[in-house]
Amino acid sequence: MSKNNNKRVEQITSMDVDFAQWYTDIVKKAELADYSSVRGCVILRPYAYAIWENIQKYLDGKFKEKGHENVYMPMLIPESLLQKEKDHVEGFAPEVAWVTKGGNDELTEKLCVRPTSETLFCEHYAKIVQSYKDLPKLYNQWCSVVRWEKTTRPFLRTSEFLWQEGHTIHATKEEAEAETIQMLNIYAEFCENMLAIPVVKGRKTEKEKFAGAEATYTIESLMHDGKALQSGTSHFFGQNFAKAFGIQFADKNEKLEYVNQTSWGMSTRIIGGIIMVHGDDEGLKMPPRIAPTQVVIIPVAQHKAGVIEKATELKDRISKVARVKMDISDKTPGWKFSEYEMKGIPVRLEIGPKDIEKNQVVLVRRDTREKIFVSMDELETKIPELLEDIHNSMLTAATKAREEKTSTATTMEEFNDKVENKTGFVKAMWCGDKECEDKIKEVTGATSRCIPFEQEELSGTCVCCGKKAKHMVYWGRAY
Amino acid sequence: MSKNNNKRVEQITSMDVDFAQWYTDIVKKAELADYSSVRGCVILRPYAYAIWENIQKYLDGKFKEKGHENVYMPMLIPESLLQKEKDHVEGFAPEVAWVTKGGNDELTEKLCVRPTSETLFCEHYAKIVQSYKDLPKLYNQWCSVVRWEKTTRPFLRTSEFLWQEGHTIHATKEEAEAETIQMLNIYAEFCENMLAIPVVKGRKTEKEKFAGAEATYTIESLMHDGKALQSGTSHFFGQNFAKAFGIQFADKNEKLEYVNQTSWGMSTRIIGGIIMVHGDDEGLKMPPRIAPTQVVIIPVAQHKAGVIEKATELKDRISKVARVKMDISDKTPGWKFSEYEMKGIPVRLEIGPKDIEKNQVVLVRRDTREKIFVSMDELETKIPELLEDIHNSMLTAATKAREEKTSTATTMEEFNDKVENKTGFVKAMWCGDKECEDKIKEVTGATSRCIPFEQEELSGTCVCCGKKAKHMVYWGRAY
Repeated sequence: MSKNNNKRVEQITSMDVDFAQWYTDIVKKAELADYSSVRGCVILRPYAYAIWENIQKYLDGKFKEKGHENVYMPMLIPESLLQKEKDHVEGFAPEVAWVTKGGNDELTEKLCVRPTSETLFCEHYAKIVQSYKDLPKLYNQWCSVVRWEKTTRPFLRTSEFLWQEGHTIHATKEEAEAETIQMLNIYAEFCENMLAIPVVKGRKTEKEKFAGAEATYTIESLMHDGKALQSGTSHFFGQNFAKAFGIQFADKNEKLEYVNQTSWGMSTRIIGGIIMVHGDDEGLKMPPRIAPTQVVIIPVAQHKAGVIEKATELKDRISKVARVKMDISDKTPGWKFSEYEMKGIPVRLEIGPKDIEKNQVVLVRRDTREKIFVSMDELETKIPELLEDIHNSMLTAATKAREEKTSTATTMEEFNDKVENKTGFVKAMWCGDKECEDKIKEVTGATSRCIPFEQEELSGTCVCCGKKAKHMVYWGRAY
Repeated sequence: MSKNNNKRVEQITSMDVDFAQWYTDIVKKAELADYSSVRGCVILRPYAYAIWENIQKYLDGKFKEKGHENVYMPMLIPESLLQKEKDHVEGFAPEVAWVTKGGNDELTEKLCVRPTSETLFCEHYAKIVQSYKDLPKLYNQWCSVVRWEKTTRPFLRTSEFLWQEGHTIHATKEEAEAETIQMLNIYAEFCENMLAIPVVKGRKTEKEKFAGAEATYTIESLMHDGKALQSGTSHFFGQNFAKAFGIQFADKNEKLEYVNQTSWGMSTRIIGGIIMVHGDDEGLKMPPRIAPTQVVIIPVAQHKAGVIEKATELKDRISKVARVKMDISDKTPGWKFSEYEMKGIPVRLEIGPKDIEKNQVVLVRRDTREKIFVSMDELETKIPELLEDIHNSMLTAATKAREEKTSTATTMEEFNDKVENKTGFVKAMWCGDKECEDKIKEVTGATSRCIPFEQEELSGTCVCCGKKAKHMVYWGRAY
C-alpha cells in the first residue's frame, strides 16, 4: 500500500502527442482537481483552491477599490422569476438543474439552481431603489453556479463552477457603459499583470453575446494548442432587465426612469487558462504573482549536520519577501525536483553542505530551467528580482506564442487553410451578417471570438460574402 | 418617491414588547438581510456580508495557523452516496432539496443539494489516502448548504445558509478527539474574544448529537429573551464513516487500519446571535473587533467653513488605527445619529465648528451612549483604547445577563417554574436516560443544551426520575 518514495514522479503525456490527455494528466498529477461521483463536477483540491483564493484576493481588492460591495443571493431561483426576461430564460433554461422536491414533498413551483443571478439581483434592486440618490448600486457576489453541461473538463467546462458575478445599476446609460468597460479592463489587467496571460479585448457579435444583454465585452486568450479561451466577460444590459423587473427611480425632477444595468464575471475556468498557456511536458508553470508557493527550498544531503538548520534559517528570511515552503520529507531530492516542477513552483532553492561552505545557494527557474548561483547574503533582493523577471519572461513568451499563432485571411480558402494548418486566431474582415458568421463556422469550425477594440483594415470586403466589411474580427476554435 | 431626508429613522418595536418583531425590525432597518421570493431564503445585504467576511477572515486565519487547507466539493450529492452511512441519511434525508431534472431530462438518480458534506469528503479521502504518511488530512470548505426548513427566520433558520465545514481524518482516535476539542476551543475563543459573546462548552446528549457522530461538542450562548443558541459544533466520528466509505491506510507495519474522523462548523447563524445578545431598542450593537465600521464620523454644521476639511483630515488619521467611515450626505445629524445607532457602529465621532475651536471632538459610545470629549491630538491612542473598553464592557454585560438568566433546579416543579418565570439556562442533574430527557422536554419545553465540561454537583439524583444522577446538564428553550 505504501508509496515508493524514491521513484521519480511519473511522466505525463507529451502535450504535442495528445494535448487533451496532457491537460488531464497535469490536473491530476499536480493535484489540482479530482473527479467526484457527481456527474460533471470536480473537487478543487487544496492547491487549486489556494490559486483561486489568490485570484479572489486580488480581484476582490480591485472591486472594493472601485466602490463595489459584496452580497449573497439565494442559490435557488423560482421558475417564474427566471422567466421574467425572455431572452435570458431562452438562453439558460435548457442547461439548468431543477429542484422539484423538498424533503418528501413535491414543490408547487420548481426552482433552478442558479446558472447566473441577474434575475435575483433585479428583484432585489426593484425593492430597494427609489431615488437617484440610491444610485449607483455596485454589488458583487462570490459563489458557485450550475450549468448542466453535456461534456465536461476540469476547470474549462464543469456542471458546477466557482465564480464572481458583479451586478450594477446606474442612473444613466453612459455610467453603465463606463462600468462595463472599467470591469473588462480590470479583468484584462489581472490576466496580464497577475497571470502573465495576454488577452485581446473586444465585443462579442450578436450571435455570441450573453442571453439578455445589449452588448457583451470579452477578453480572449490563446492556448498552447491554438484554441481560444473566453477568459472573462462584461455585459451591458441597457434597460432590458430593468423594464422586465420594474427597476425604476425618481430622478432629480421626480420623474420615474428605468435604471441602466451591467453584469460581469470571471470564474475558475481561468485556472485552465493558466495550465494551457504556460504549462509544458514537465507540468504546470505557475505565474509567480499568483503562485500559492513562489519558492520551494529543497535541502540536498539533508542528513548532514547543519543542512536543515541552515535551510530553515533561509526559509524564515525568505518568508519576509516571498511565499516559501521547505520540503524535508524523506523523499529523494530527485523526486522532489520532479514533484515541484509538476506543480510549477516558480523558483526552486537547492542547498547542500558544499553550498553552505561557499555561502551560496542554487536557484532554479521553473520557466527556463536556468540555474543561478546566488550568495546567501543577497537572497532578500535576488529572489523578488528573480520572481519579477520570471513574470516578465512568461508574459513575453506567451505573447510571442500568441503572435506566432495569429494570422490573417482575406479569402475563405485562405481562412480554411489557416484554421486547418496553423490553429490559432485568424483575423478576417466581416460584413456583420449572421449568415456569414454561421457559414464561417460551418466551413472552418471557427467561431467569432470578438470584434477587437483595436481594429485593423485588412481589406474592404467580408471574407465570406465579399460585401462591404464592417469589422475586423478575431476568429478561432474555442474551449 | 424620494425619501424624506430629515425624518428620524423610524422606531422599531421594543424588545420587551415583542422580541420576535424587534429581531425582524433590526434585520430590516439595519439593512442586514432582505427577504427574497425564494421560500425560506434571505438575501445577505452588504452590511451583513461584510460582518461575515470579517468572521471568515478571523476563522480562516486560525484554521490555517493550525495546518488546515481549504478545498471545494460539489454542491450536489447523489442519493446513493448520501445513503452510505445509515444514521447520517436518516438524519438528513427528510430535510434536503432534491434535483431531479437537468435541462429537459429526468435524472436517472436524483441529487440532493448538500445539507452538509461528510459523504463527499469521505469518498474523496478513500481515494487519496493510502499510507499513514498521508495523514492527517485537515480540510475545510466555505460554502452554502440547504436544509428544507418548515419555519424560517433570517440568520437563525433559513433554507439556505453560509458556513464553513471542516473535515479531518487522523491515524488515531486520540488525535481525532484532540482535533475535535481544539476546533471547539477556537469557536469558543472566537465568540468571546471577537464577538463579546460568552459561551458554555460541553457535549451534546445522544439524543441531540449529529446524525452519524460518536460525540458532538457544542458551544451554547444565551440570548436576551432567555432562549439558547447553539453557536458552533464539533463532531467526533470515530470510524463510523471510515467503515461505511472504506477509508483505510497502511500503518507503519503495513497493516490496514481505518481512519478516525472529525467535522466542525460555524455558520451565518452567529450573526443572529450578535443581534440577540447585544442589541437594544435603538438597534444593533456591533462588537468592535468584528464591526465592519468601528468609527463613524458625523460632521455637525458641515456647511460651515473648514468642518468637512477637518473631518476628512481626522478620517485619514483614524483610518490608520480603526475601520472608519464619514457621512457627509445632506441628511441631518439627528437622522445620521439614529441611522448609525441602528447599525450599531461602536463609536460615533461628532465634530463641529465649536469643537474645532477647542481642538476637540465628541466620541459617543454605542454600548453605554456615554459622551467623551477628547483632544484631537490624542485620537490615535484614545480610539483604540475606547474600542477595547467597549469590547470588554460588552462581554462583561453579556456575561452578567447570562448569569442572571441562569438558575438551578432539583425538582421538576422547580424546573418548570424556572422555565416559565425566568427563562434562561436551567442547570439540573440528569440520570442519562433518554426517557427523562424526553419527559423534561414534554413538561417544560426545554431541551438539553449540553453536558458542560465544567460539571457541578447540584444533587445526587436526576431531577426527573430521582435515580442516581450521571451529569449536570444545561437545559433551555432554544432557537
